[in-house]
Amino acid sequence: MFREGDLVLIQIEDKKYLKKLTKNFHLNVKDRTLRYEDVIGRESGDKVGDFYLFEPTLEDIILLGFERKTQIIYPKDAFYIAFKLGIDRSSRVLEFGTGSGALTAVLSHIAMEVYSYEQSEKFYQLALRNWERFQLCKNVRAFLMDFSEATLEEESFDAAFVDVREPWHYVDKVHRVLKRGAVCGFLLPTTNQVCTLLSHLNGKFASIEVLEIFHRYYKTNPERFRPEDRMVAHTAYLVFGRKIKDG
Amino acid sequence: MFREGDLVLIQIEDKKYLKKLTKNFHLNVKDRTLRYEDVIGRESGDKVGDFYLFEPTLEDIILLGFERKTQIIYPKDAFYIAFKLGIDRSSRVLEFGTGSGALTAVLSHIAMEVYSYEQSEKFYQLALRNWERFQLCKNVRAFLMDFSEATLEEESFDAAFVDVREPWHYVDKVHRVLKRGAVCGFLLPTTNQVCTLLSHLNGKFASIEVLEIFHRYYKTNPERFRPEDRMVAHTAYLVFGRKIKDG
Amino acid sequence: MFREGDLVLIQIEDKKYLKKLTKNFHLNVKDRTLRYEDVIGRESGDKVGDFYLFEPTLEDIILLGFERKTQIIYPKDAFYIAFKLGIDRSSRVLEFGTGSGALTAVLSHIAMEVYSYEQSEKFYQLALRNWERFQLCKNVRAFLMDFSEATLEEESFDAAFVDVREPWHYVDKVHRVLKRGAVCGFLLPTTNQVCTLLSHLNGKFASIEVLEIFHRYYKTNPERFRPEDRMVAHTAYLVFGRKIKDG
Amino acid sequence: MFREGDLVLIQIEDKKYLKKLTKNFHLNVKDRTLRYEDVIGRESGDKVGDFYLFEPTLEDIILLGFERKTQIIYPKDAFYIAFKLGIDRSSRVLEFGTGSGALTAVLSHIAMEVYSYEQSEKFYQLALRNWERFQLCKNVRAFLMDFSEATLEEESFDAAFVDVREPWHYVDKVHRVLKRGAVCGFLLPTTNQVCTLLSHLNGKFASIEVLEIFHRYYKTNPERFRPEDRMVAHTAYLVFGRKIKDG
Repeated sequence: MFREGDLVLIQIEDKKYLKKLTKNFHLNVKDRTLRYEDVIGRESGDKVGDFYLFEPTLEDIILLGFERKTQIIYPKDAFYIAFKLGIDRSSRVLEFGTGSGALTAVLSHIAMEVYSYEQSEKFYQLALRNWERFQLCKNVRAFLMDFSEATLEEESFDAAFVDVREPWHYVDKVHRVLKRGAVCGFLLPTTNQVCTLLSHLNGKFASIEVLEIFHRYYKTNPERFRPEDRMVAHTAYLVFGRKIKDG
Repeated sequence: MFREGDLVLIQIEDKKYLKKLTKNFHLNVKDRTLRYEDVIGRESGDKVGDFYLFEPTLEDIILLGFERKTQIIYPKDAFYIAFKLGIDRSSRVLEFGTGSGALTAVLSHIAMEVYSYEQSEKFYQLALRNWERFQLCKNVRAFLMDFSEATLEEESFDAAFVDVREPWHYVDKVHRVLKRGAVCGFLLPTTNQVCTLLSHLNGKFASIEVLEIFHRYYKTNPERFRPEDRMVAHTAYLVFGRKIKDG
Repeated sequence: MFREGDLVLIQIEDKKYLKKLTKNFHLNVKDRTLRYEDVIGRESGDKVGDFYLFEPTLEDIILLGFERKTQIIYPKDAFYIAFKLGIDRSSRVLEFGTGSGALTAVLSHIAMEVYSYEQSEKFYQLALRNWERFQLCKNVRAFLMDFSEATLEEESFDAAFVDVREPWHYVDKVHRVLKRGAVCGFLLPTTNQVCTLLSHLNGKFASIEVLEIFHRYYKTNPERFRPEDRMVAHTAYLVFGRKIKDG
Repeated sequence: MFREGDLVLIQIEDKKYLKKLTKNFHLNVKDRTLRYEDVIGRESGDKVGDFYLFEPTLEDIILLGFERKTQIIYPKDAFYIAFKLGIDRSSRVLEFGTGSGALTAVLSHIAMEVYSYEQSEKFYQLALRNWERFQLCKNVRAFLMDFSEATLEEESFDAAFVDVREPWHYVDKVHRVLKRGAVCGFLLPTTNQVCTLLSHLNGKFASIEVLEIFHRYYKTNPERFRPEDRMVAHTAYLVFGRKIKDG
């Protein structure tokens, strides 16, 4: 039952809105209005006028709720990354940089603990705000720090993910703190970055994979079933490798 | 450290093998041989000759280890489904049918509990064997039963996934046992099935999405960076909807 | 050299404009202006301020110059269709419906002669205007007529293309007027239409192919080479078959 | 009517064969046999047992008939290139290198004249054999020569296409012999090559586009309409630019 202060996902036709239920809440879409008193006391799945009300999922929160200052790691990529890292409920995972904290939120759903490093104060604060607002990432330890300055035990992480502009500077350090055979992932928007990174992984990581993920959505009219006219063509290249013994 | 009875992922160039370490283990690839005594006592990430040794991840286990009698739900799809269902460590998830148990294994990494129904004894036994062999799915309750005959409390599941040939026969029942607003997913190989399903979701599920997921892999030579020549073009269409109040 | 009355393709950064050079011509993009007297007397490939001037290609004309009242057949599809029909400079090609005349213009670049039928006067006039404006389709005979009412000799066309909403009504007639073994193509936006058409081709056309064409564009900065963020995900399904002997 | 010496495209189920009708012709597919006397005197579109007989189209010839020593330019790419070059029946087109002559055959269907340069004798001879065997490219002048050594008038070609490993060596020369504003295309398999080329086009070519073309094929059963399981994921990147005034 939706109460004051709750988050509610509101869908009308193809449009979705993620809102906090405060006394002064109201939503206007075209000539239709949804008000605080229309939502309060309702259940997820209820319909008010043309508005559907739902509890937001993690995907809704990341796509619609997270404040961002740069491109986030999209759910389509984050959901794959989380499992690709080979983690489970007993895993300690390392992340650098935190960014707006979207991937962290996904990793923390599977792992026991996530250590997330961010060197920009702006992003560090942003991630903390996002997690607090949506009550996520209770099992995350966030550090405002360049990962290269972190004091970490050798071979202490089960997996790592690096999302910074020049990840090649951190390959040695990540290698050192990962357990043997552990998976490390990277996210990079350009082919030039991927090429530079690949040349730095040599001798430290093996079983290298590079891939892109596409989601193609369809219109849902069963009499005229066809793909949407346009789609996201690129977010980033994902690179994965597994730690091997040095040299 | 790999011991007798352990599972080991062996990679040589682009080829991967998932093997159980038994006394009579040996692997021949082209003119190179890996033997039991080469692996025993080694660590994940070690290299023996041209062979890399790793602990298998969940993806390795599903792709290389799971016995299957029909097409499995591929990791590319399963990893997205698991998060798209909106579940977390407190969720009870319903699945029908179990198939070879690949999606179940993924769901059980996030959820508190998975109830999985399968009406074919052959598949039910197959899934049990797969889970036991790889020590997965401890929090799964498997039922050999047509889901339509299951006695389940109303509004008792946080999410559901249906992977059967004619899922439209089960839409009413799934709707009944799902909590309000819960996400339900479906997997279907043909557009005809998608169209039939869509016409049955009307009035029971809203926020409908239909999509396909593509993974495009790249060759990893940084001097000649380019996509692989061929790719998987289709596994299945994914359909998601959220339970709404009936009528 | 550009003269009054000429068509000129103007490119500034990523934006393209196709304009006719008239005395009152001028183009404002942001705070930059291109005037009639800046273009007159210039050559294709010249740069005036930040504006590049080019003679338009057939693709430019279709994408930027053709007036349209509905979706056109896009160059990405039309260029493939034209060759897929198996035609050369000696071929007589049949088309129904003409639409805005984009495919006709492409076909007429290869074929000896194109017969194009259109039952809507609005579209018939539109196509004539488009062709006249850009001086295309001199070897095209356009008919304002439902193709089913056309009086045509049997086995007289080397290829055919049908772009109407319910092409299955015309399969028999198209079959009759095509030469033996000739290729016939169809364009359809929805899977439902494709399925209905496929069931009508049986026994009349063989070597059936159904495909979609995607173009994925890249940003052209060599230091940051990466795909464009978004792309066209769907225009239409293309269906091709070859006439076989009846029954 | 098929006669001795004719080329015939034979299709049985999903398999296609392009064969020359000689006295000793016969084709075995599984346990079915097609013989010389079964084909002679038949028409395109006829069916003999389970075999369909067709006159080959240009696409059939390139995909099934052309002898190749390396990757050819595929029809999916060649058909787009031909029109993208902006040519018509009055155009003189330049090509370097000829390769197995597939793109040449496509260009020659639209252009008035194609000048094709190839520096490897092996490929030069291969292209000549392919064209002769299929009676193509009557309007093509082939040269066994490094294009950089060709003596050509300035501004004499309406379009050009370059398919060599290091096309950046030829950018100046191609620029010189092209008419003002003319389109030049390039085909390159790796992103590294594309990046190097892009940095050499600067100041000589504008309106640069880089793209990839995908064709996604579908199974043709209207009751179970769905994409093929696998597809070609990469042939090459296509780069196009238009000549601008130097400097």
